[in-house]
Amino acid sequence: MGVTFNDATKKLLDGNNFPVLATINADGSAQTSVLWAKRDGDTVIFATVRGRLKERNMARDPRVSVTVFDQENPYDYVEIRGTVEMTDEGGRELINELSHKYLGKDYPDEPAEVVRVLVRITPTKITGNAA
Amino acid sequence: MGVTFNDATKKLLDGNNFPVLATINADGSAQTSVLWAKRDGDTVIFATVRGRLKERNMARDPRVSVTVFDQENPYDYVEIRGTVEMTDEGGRELINELSHKYLGKDYPDEPAEVVRVLVRITPTKITGNAA
Repeated sequence: MGVTFNDATKKLLDGNNFPVLATINADGSAQTSVLWAKRDGDTVIFATVRGRLKERNMARDPRVSVTVFDQENPYDYVEIRGTVEMTDEGGRELINELSHKYLGKDYPDEPAEVVRVLVRITPTKITGNAA
Repeated sequence: MGVTFNDATKKLLDGNNFPVLATINADGSAQTSVLWAKRDGDTVIFATVRGRLKERNMARDPRVSVTVFDQENPYDYVEIRGTVEMTDEGGRELINELSHKYLGKDYPDEPAEVVRVLVRITPTKITGNAA
């Protein structure tokens, strides 16, 4: 039995909000970046590119933390800590799906050498007033 | 000579935007939380409470990362990595000032035993499209 999302957290993740992800750098410090993301059941999925700092960080240390707040009411927020699994399968499809979620249109074509990675965060701890 | 903020980063920090802070937990994983913050010259300041997780984390490891995006246009963003210094001096005044910045009113009174800490982030690296 894993950690599951309540309705308030689902609403934050299903909306067009902008989670901020923290990964761990090689020197043990943190790196943060803003994401397009969506909920897939009781996991969070997003797409990054093989070789980027956050992807290299997660390959070395799969522990991440994401804070997401309601774009219309930032006082409604949640922190999700968890561990990631990464796969090339479905990364292209996911970035396109997220582009439709956030922008309502296709994501631009990328060169074949760009490897789009699908990242799945399985939560281990959820805190915040929407937790 | 430290790292300085350009005009785009200053605008993000001076606006009513909601930075997300990452600190490092005792086990080396990351913790994130959403902040009220403001710019003080080429530093970022915010107020927390002595004993909270983020405060204990920063006391142990002063390295942090903050991502802030424009509330009206989240595609305008910056990541600021830096190190923090913490002091009790001015913490109460700062939380009240931030309450006025974000909400336009006084911050509620806190019990005398609550120690408000002023946290100052001195940047070491700034990235993002507003960097």
